[in-house]
Amino acid sequence: MKTIVSTGGGPGGLAVEERPQPRPGPRQLLVRMSAASLNYRDLEVVARARDAARPLVPVSDGVGRVVAAGPEVTRFRTGDRVSPIFFPDWIAGEPSAEARRRRLGGPDDGVLAEYVAVDEHAAVAPPAHLSDVEAAALPCAGVTAWSALFVTDRVLPGETVVVQGTGGVSTFAILLAAQAGARVIVVSGSAAKLERARALGAGDGIDRRAEPEWHERVLELTGGRGADHVIDVAGGDGLTRSLAATRVGGTISLAGYVAGHTGRFDLATAFVRRLRMQGLGVGSRDSFEALVRALESSEARPPIDRVFPVDELAAALTHLETGGPFGKVALTFAVG
Amino acid sequence: MKTIVSTGGGPGGLAVEERPQPRPGPRQLLVRMSAASLNYRDLEVVARARDAARPLVPVSDGVGRVVAAGPEVTRFRTGDRVSPIFFPDWIAGEPSAEARRRRLGGPDDGVLAEYVAVDEHAAVAPPAHLSDVEAAALPCAGVTAWSALFVTDRVLPGETVVVQGTGGVSTFAILLAAQAGARVIVVSGSAAKLERARALGAGDGIDRRAEPEWHERVLELTGGRGADHVIDVAGGDGLTRSLAATRVGGTISLAGYVAGHTGRFDLATAFVRRLRMQGLGVGSRDSFEALVRALESSEARPPIDRVFPVDELAAALTHLETGGPFGKVALTFAVG
Amino acid sequence: MKTIVSTGGGPGGLAVEERPQPRPGPRQLLVRMSAASLNYRDLEVVARARDAARPLVPVSDGVGRVVAAGPEVTRFRTGDRVSPIFFPDWIAGEPSAEARRRRLGGPDDGVLAEYVAVDEHAAVAPPAHLSDVEAAALPCAGVTAWSALFVTDRVLPGETVVVQGTGGVSTFAILLAAQAGARVIVVSGSAAKLERARALGAGDGIDRRAEPEWHERVLELTGGRGADHVIDVAGGDGLTRSLAATRVGGTISLAGYVAGHTGRFDLATAFVRRLRMQGLGVGSRDSFEALVRALESSEARPPIDRVFPVDELAAALTHLETGGPFGKVALTFAVG
Amino acid sequence: MKTIVSTGGGPGGLAVEERPQPRPGPRQLLVRMSAASLNYRDLEVVARARDAARPLVPVSDGVGRVVAAGPEVTRFRTGDRVSPIFFPDWIAGEPSAEARRRRLGGPDDGVLAEYVAVDEHAAVAPPAHLSDVEAAALPCAGVTAWSALFVTDRVLPGETVVVQGTGGVSTFAILLAAQAGARVIVVSGSAAKLERARALGAGDGIDRRAEPEWHERVLELTGGRGADHVIDVAGGDGLTRSLAATRVGGTISLAGYVAGHTGRFDLATAFVRRLRMQGLGVGSRDSFEALVRALESSEARPPIDRVFPVDELAAALTHLETGGPFGKVALTFAVG
Repeated sequence: MKTIVSTGGGPGGLAVEERPQPRPGPRQLLVRMSAASLNYRDLEVVARARDAARPLVPVSDGVGRVVAAGPEVTRFRTGDRVSPIFFPDWIAGEPSAEARRRRLGGPDDGVLAEYVAVDEHAAVAPPAHLSDVEAAALPCAGVTAWSALFVTDRVLPGETVVVQGTGGVSTFAILLAAQAGARVIVVSGSAAKLERARALGAGDGIDRRAEPEWHERVLELTGGRGADHVIDVAGGDGLTRSLAATRVGGTISLAGYVAGHTGRFDLATAFVRRLRMQGLGVGSRDSFEALVRALESSEARPPIDRVFPVDELAAALTHLETGGPFGKVALTFAVG
Repeated sequence: MKTIVSTGGGPGGLAVEERPQPRPGPRQLLVRMSAASLNYRDLEVVARARDAARPLVPVSDGVGRVVAAGPEVTRFRTGDRVSPIFFPDWIAGEPSAEARRRRLGGPDDGVLAEYVAVDEHAAVAPPAHLSDVEAAALPCAGVTAWSALFVTDRVLPGETVVVQGTGGVSTFAILLAAQAGARVIVVSGSAAKLERARALGAGDGIDRRAEPEWHERVLELTGGRGADHVIDVAGGDGLTRSLAATRVGGTISLAGYVAGHTGRFDLATAFVRRLRMQGLGVGSRDSFEALVRALESSEARPPIDRVFPVDELAAALTHLETGGPFGKVALTFAVG
Repeated sequence: MKTIVSTGGGPGGLAVEERPQPRPGPRQLLVRMSAASLNYRDLEVVARARDAARPLVPVSDGVGRVVAAGPEVTRFRTGDRVSPIFFPDWIAGEPSAEARRRRLGGPDDGVLAEYVAVDEHAAVAPPAHLSDVEAAALPCAGVTAWSALFVTDRVLPGETVVVQGTGGVSTFAILLAAQAGARVIVVSGSAAKLERARALGAGDGIDRRAEPEWHERVLELTGGRGADHVIDVAGGDGLTRSLAATRVGGTISLAGYVAGHTGRFDLATAFVRRLRMQGLGVGSRDSFEALVRALESSEARPPIDRVFPVDELAAALTHLETGGPFGKVALTFAVG
Repeated sequence: MKTIVSTGGGPGGLAVEERPQPRPGPRQLLVRMSAASLNYRDLEVVARARDAARPLVPVSDGVGRVVAAGPEVTRFRTGDRVSPIFFPDWIAGEPSAEARRRRLGGPDDGVLAEYVAVDEHAAVAPPAHLSDVEAAALPCAGVTAWSALFVTDRVLPGETVVVQGTGGVSTFAILLAAQAGARVIVVSGSAAKLERARALGAGDGIDRRAEPEWHERVLELTGGRGADHVIDVAGGDGLTRSLAATRVGGTISLAGYVAGHTGRFDLATAFVRRLRMQGLGVGSRDSFEALVRALESSEARPPIDRVFPVDELAAALTHLETGGPFGKVALTFAVG
């Protein structure tokens, strides 16, 4: 079967290999993949130098249909649509050390192959109302947004959530915070994207080119109280603004580092406002299943910026890196 | 000023007294009352025998406008609309022993007087979009529903909440759980009320006359999983059904005893399903203010079954007791 | 190998069978058992009628040494001492439906065989300072006590924990609550057992034969405040006393039903005191490992009431049922 | 009565004024002060420039005896020993905006006067076994340590807590974490202080002069797992080490900035290890009372480095700033 592998060094190091179709173990599913979805992490994984003898099947997030199941499988049956989960052994609660070691798309092989063998306990049925391409958006970006809002924090109706940017995690955060009855304020450098964010459920938008001191606008919009929750994707010195925009006792979820890999913040602000900064790290199968129930209930759809055939993975990665996508960049597998 | 007092023994023991208008202390508000709202608790308070020399001003829940404020007041000003809170000294977190002793409408005087002096820290500004009569519905019923869903439990988007009945706490629970993105199943003995519950946001209704084993229908509607949360207003033996309707690890909030003052349940079910039963007891000012923010955000309105002039308190209490109201029974104060 | 099986109908239905030694799968451990420990649940399991063609290996809690390991095993190696966990698939957080279905000692085969094959993810290394017999006490009783104090509740230093009885769960609760800096009050019908409970760390004892209204004594000992936490093993009408002994906002953990399978309680008390009743159901591997770290740190030892050779299982069960053991009843496997 | 005031500019700006003895309001206590205790915050407050016409009574933490009480007082009586709380209106839960505005020792007058009038709701009775000087240590340092371990985090028996330094918050953290059954690792630049920390309950000490990469030693001591909780008093670049010493899913409490007012940390570490950084800000009366119960139960005593007569406040502040005290620096009021 056709398998995409990364030999390292970036998109130039991608190749197509012919590999034997895997055989499912007794508790495994054989899944024929139909769509996948990219995350920033995939850019880093593909760039990383590798042992040439051991190329990696990249990309963690995908969806497909069960075409065969081992004899002990009970959770799924042939024909079911499933997504592999990012940490195959992280089922619920806190992950054990072993559970954190296994991760799809590096160090474990990812989903860019015609067929993938998946432990049945490591698969989730995505919401029925989503297309394959939409369903493939969930495993990292959707679960990360869910965890930020409802696992490491708990957003309540009537609270205010500030979301920076409009990438994958951010657009899921907009959809989910709106579903939870929260007021969503989006901070973006593009008026057009703010407009689209409103269509997803954001109540307010701040154009940070027009208002670089965007935290002051957040304070104004919240009557001086500050936001209950900020999803920070900038890091670097920008973190200072996120802290300034957050209410006493509120939470800043650390979800990215587009402005720098080092976070810098004023300690006195953190003390006086008793702030909490929380590093995000995807989530468990339990969180994935809770996300599925929420999306099934709202029938919300994650925005897909652009879809590439899987053969054009290099172009898709470049678009993710430089195209400023609104929502997710997806891949489809050729039919037949 | 005209003041309604209870001398005990039920509605027949109610009387109108002329009392001097209170003077606000340095940190107090003088509030001219415009509306009030009844709770089952008021039936019990009015029925209780009292020392004839010390009649009680009954009813805890009301709304009015600030007509004068003490010199040290900072939270409100003249003209503001406010509601006194049920526990005047319970601001946030867990209540202290002292905070639990003071309760409006018994043992402390309640709101059925033309003017009431209220500590500024014991008042909350209700949502601006509500009428006075709607705003008066919040202090007990609204805060109790908020606490059940978001303080002693945490209802998440996509979860299922079963609400028994359609009284004050129950209708707030429907509105708030729907705003939080949860699926609401209402259990009622009236098809007409189920229809109205759907208009408030309930997704499903179960007519318990047609389906006395309503818990089985809940299991069916949830694919066998059970509800994440049940608001139980029945108590008695009915509690057994609430437990049977709840998912493993879920919560039954104890909010009433229309079926008996003793709760009875099967211990093995509680163990095997690791269930939690939680007694509700209104809530703090902090919870009241969170409720206000949520309602301001959704612009939802609590249903008012019927409005009586305050002079017809006895009739209003009888209607609450025997009329099977949908939502709240309210009182208005005569103008002029 | 020698295997003890239950054909149903109580201790009389126990038999010894010769079964082939199991072969460990790729991620399994072959464990040679050395000790086991009984729980009340084992009495019920053994009493239950069974399909004669499918006898059950009873008893869930045991300890042994790894004598062989499958090729993919990473968590343990040959020679390690391990205990199988009660729910083999409940690793952390909330258990999934599948995770709850598998339970050792019924419906899955238990540990009363010379050799047992255990999934490596379903085994835990007990604290090194414990003897085999002591280590075998942990999987149900220890994990249940841990969950009650630190998972479904959170006992803090200086809080008061009331523990009913001195069986397996209760003695672990005494040890662990004392380690956590809480004050422990034990309620028992035996002055001698109260004395032994003090040696485990209990600060106070109430002899419920001398003081049947033991909740009043708890209120007295806590200056009228009530206990923060009560471990209720009685159920039935006795639950009323547990509620009366608990502080406002406190928790009653439901851990047994020696006084009746139906719990009965006064709903008004549950409301006014905002009480929480929590059904216990053992716990996850994560909780087991946290318990191990706690015991390693304190070097505490669970009390073992009496040790029987595994051949005398029937006598051991009878002792558990009628002997009023202090702590656990244990079994040892013949050497050689 | 004699009152110490700060006119700004540091210890040189301190003066003694004669002020009239305050009269307690109806719900106030008149307290004759006997001891006080210094915090780093007092250094900053005293250094700050002030309007010369409005000098401030500095220092928030003190203890004294009730010599008179207003007619409506119910919580205390004459002769009781009490401490004012740092935020006089923060009773429980999250503090309101008003509650955060009032703070003793700036902007509100502090405790360095012979008599202080205190709202009865803003006073707490310290543990009876403590001397006045020890009792005066609690309001900021003790409550901050309690909040870090048990309010914004929850330290469990058998967990590991790393405490940096041996100042006021740090020594309370050692005492309380040890009482909670946790293992405490202290990081200090002084072997002598590490020895004294062991006497308070620390299990291990790391001399950071000998081992500047102290986080590696923490990983070694915890078998590679990392600490469950780190109390960081350094800030600056040192925060990086605290993150590296913390287990996946663990918490770093931000409690000081001796190494720099800007916190700097590696975002990738925060993501991959899903870390939480929590700014501390003293705590509520409820937390203070919980701390009192814990200390009464353990009979632990906070270490007092040195005691100065209140007249030597300037020298005491200098000792706090430059003397590297182990535990608290205290003040006593002249008798008679």
